[in-house]
Amino acid sequence: MVKRIVVIGSGAAGMTAASTAREHAKDADIVLITEDAHVAYSPCAIPFVIEGRIKDFNSIIMHTPEWYRKERGIEVHTKAKVAQVDMDLRRLTLQDGAVLPFDVLVLATGGTVFVPPVEGANLRGVFPVRWLDDGKAILRALDDVRSVVVAGAGVIGLEMAVALRYRGKEVTVVEMFNQCIPRLFDDDMARLVQAHCEGLGVKFLLGAPLGSISGEGRVERVRVAAQDLPCQMLILATGVRPNLELANQIGLDLGPLGAVRVSASLQPYRKGRLVKDLYLAGDVISCESAIVPGPTLSQLGSSAVRQGRVAGINAVGGYAQYPGVASPFISVIGDLQVGGLGMSRGLADYYGIKAVEGKAHGLTRARYYPGGKPVTVKVLADPSSRRIIGAQVVGGEEVTGRINWLGAAIVKGVTADEFQIGFENAYCPPVSMVRDVVNEAVDDLVTNLGR
Amino acid sequence: MVKRIVVIGSGAAGMTAASTAREHAKDADIVLITEDAHVAYSPCAIPFVIEGRIKDFNSIIMHTPEWYRKERGIEVHTKAKVAQVDMDLRRLTLQDGAVLPFDVLVLATGGTVFVPPVEGANLRGVFPVRWLDDGKAILRALDDVRSVVVAGAGVIGLEMAVALRYRGKEVTVVEMFNQCIPRLFDDDMARLVQAHCEGLGVKFLLGAPLGSISGEGRVERVRVAAQDLPCQMLILATGVRPNLELANQIGLDLGPLGAVRVSASLQPYRKGRLVKDLYLAGDVISCESAIVPGPTLSQLGSSAVRQGRVAGINAVGGYAQYPGVASPFISVIGDLQVGGLGMSRGLADYYGIKAVEGKAHGLTRARYYPGGKPVTVKVLADPSSRRIIGAQVVGGEEVTGRINWLGAAIVKGVTADEFQIGFENAYCPPVSMVRDVVNEAVDDLVTNLGR
Repeated sequence: MVKRIVVIGSGAAGMTAASTAREHAKDADIVLITEDAHVAYSPCAIPFVIEGRIKDFNSIIMHTPEWYRKERGIEVHTKAKVAQVDMDLRRLTLQDGAVLPFDVLVLATGGTVFVPPVEGANLRGVFPVRWLDDGKAILRALDDVRSVVVAGAGVIGLEMAVALRYRGKEVTVVEMFNQCIPRLFDDDMARLVQAHCEGLGVKFLLGAPLGSISGEGRVERVRVAAQDLPCQMLILATGVRPNLELANQIGLDLGPLGAVRVSASLQPYRKGRLVKDLYLAGDVISCESAIVPGPTLSQLGSSAVRQGRVAGINAVGGYAQYPGVASPFISVIGDLQVGGLGMSRGLADYYGIKAVEGKAHGLTRARYYPGGKPVTVKVLADPSSRRIIGAQVVGGEEVTGRINWLGAAIVKGVTADEFQIGFENAYCPPVSMVRDVVNEAVDDLVTNLGR
Repeated sequence: MVKRIVVIGSGAAGMTAASTAREHAKDADIVLITEDAHVAYSPCAIPFVIEGRIKDFNSIIMHTPEWYRKERGIEVHTKAKVAQVDMDLRRLTLQDGAVLPFDVLVLATGGTVFVPPVEGANLRGVFPVRWLDDGKAILRALDDVRSVVVAGAGVIGLEMAVALRYRGKEVTVVEMFNQCIPRLFDDDMARLVQAHCEGLGVKFLLGAPLGSISGEGRVERVRVAAQDLPCQMLILATGVRPNLELANQIGLDLGPLGAVRVSASLQPYRKGRLVKDLYLAGDVISCESAIVPGPTLSQLGSSAVRQGRVAGINAVGGYAQYPGVASPFISVIGDLQVGGLGMSRGLADYYGIKAVEGKAHGLTRARYYPGGKPVTVKVLADPSSRRIIGAQVVGGEEVTGRINWLGAAIVKGVTADEFQIGFENAYCPPVSMVRDVVNEAVDDLVTNLGR
């Protein structure tokens, strides 16, 4: 019997789920439904199009819905909203009234930028950064803009701030927390990033929650920390909240982080019991941490494609499991590469882990080799197990590989001691020091852990 | 009682052993003896000075003997040769007759470039690449040179070939094996490197052992593969053989790879019994492979500093162990970064391992992000354990981090399957694809391993 798989959502998770289902089931009937007008693009690229590093928005679209239909036999419905899902009858109803039966459903409804509950958030000139069309709208609106306020100093906020600065705008970043990249980064590492942005002319207001937004028909000023910031554009980079509408309607259990709780097979629960023929992937779920027992959000493109793969395989009756994650991320902010994974000190504190840290500063090349760029590495360990539980790296080049390297150690539960003695770096003067800064940071960590 | 530690050898192993001994024993009497005129430089930098990327040879010297004396309290004797070591009486004799007592000896005598047993190898114009003074001599001799033959297509040979090509010389690389980078690289990956060098104008003669070298007083031609190659310079990059003179004199046991066999504490054996108060480090030893039980040579600067650290700690009565190695290496050959570790297919074959491979080709950045460079990744697994046992990476940028990442997996005994599901890459369009080429190669590997 030919199965019908319906995937809801066209982000990295949904597209990967549909494509993987096709790979594993040549005959399946695969339908993908999305509210978006475009599919198969990377939202992570939006700041770089706005900055002008990528030519235009069309170039970040990898494939069209027609391509998926023709090349992959996947029927894609864009600008279509699912109004209701009936898991008992295995069918869903679109907002236009159309009814679609399915055998297995993949829910990859993603997330939406959190809009702070303040006055004026729906004024013209207020933009989230999420969809391709958000990016296009920002770009179209730029001509009339002299000053921008970016709400949220996470990596997307900072990428946007720098992008708009390169576009010649006056940019102020406002952040509720007292530091950049809250939760993911420690304040000492965050200060390096902030200083770099300030060097590019970006202004910061930290510890400053967004107050009211006001203006005549469009944003003219934002009230923050008892001052009025005049601006013609407000960018909301205030974090992504799972889109729970359908999940709630089906009655799925949520985890403590406000996302849908799933098993390792990416199946959800309803009143504590696993739901059959339903798989979830992407920003809508919480997954297991590779570091401490318990849930974590891994709202990353890299996680979404991996979850999409697992959901796609399982949806067509294959077998795949999604393991615990360390959530490695990398961001490019001006000339700085900023990456991290696992637990920051703040997150460790929250979970009652008295993390011990090691830190080192060095260069990406041998000291005498021209063009080497500074790099700072911080690693954190749980002193009871001596395991490395988190890392943060800021540098001018080759940060990604360092994050992946540390990520391998973290998911394998490697101790600081084991990393120190056994994790040798490849060395050649044009691309590294004889002992990498990562190794130096781990040396410092071992010293600080004591015996 | 103040101990006297004598270190023989001023390469990365010897210098690190002496410095580490000082760190761990403030009062120890530490003496370092070397035949070299300079200390604390990286021989790996020599090709890049010749290429002109590094200003001059002085800039690759990190510290002088005086600096070690003043800043570290380490007495350094340069241009001094040890004639004899007496382990029973704990003393050594220099060639000038001076006698030096010691409590603990560290032997870091390194290796020497293998000189093929052919006629004319001692003619003027024939240069090994090993010491700083070799590099200086090559640079001094260059003006009168139009054509160079490089013997040996390992990474040092190729780095030298490209360097000399940048200097405007006609360069021919001759190699006994049928491929570049024999033993470390598989022929398909080696061909990528060869093609790049050929694109820069380097010529190759493979499967061609070096025949006689001839000329009037200086090299004028080299006989290779039944042809005479006219040249005014011959570079010997024919591999490094351990300097065993002192080891043999002491009567130390050698391992099957022709280097000194050591314990994990880096102590040697004599007639099968561990020798007290003697530690070895660097190119003179064979160490344990992290991949298969048994010895391996890890003649790398990165390994030398790690071994030096272990020897230095143990020499002053501390405790350190040297683990199995995967020997990650990276080389920069023209605009190509070439790295690898663990077993190549050839090496696996030699050890009776029927390796299965996975391979992928992609870019270092998202497809639509300008400036992305091609990168090719090959990974090998042992089909019985499904463990990843080796990797080779060739690319335009960010190869080092990929090698270190794979290295972490290999030393931890990670299977292809585990890497596939659990080793997530950090993603941002300017610095990676959403799934890294390493992950794609591992996917291919899992497919090829079958179920």
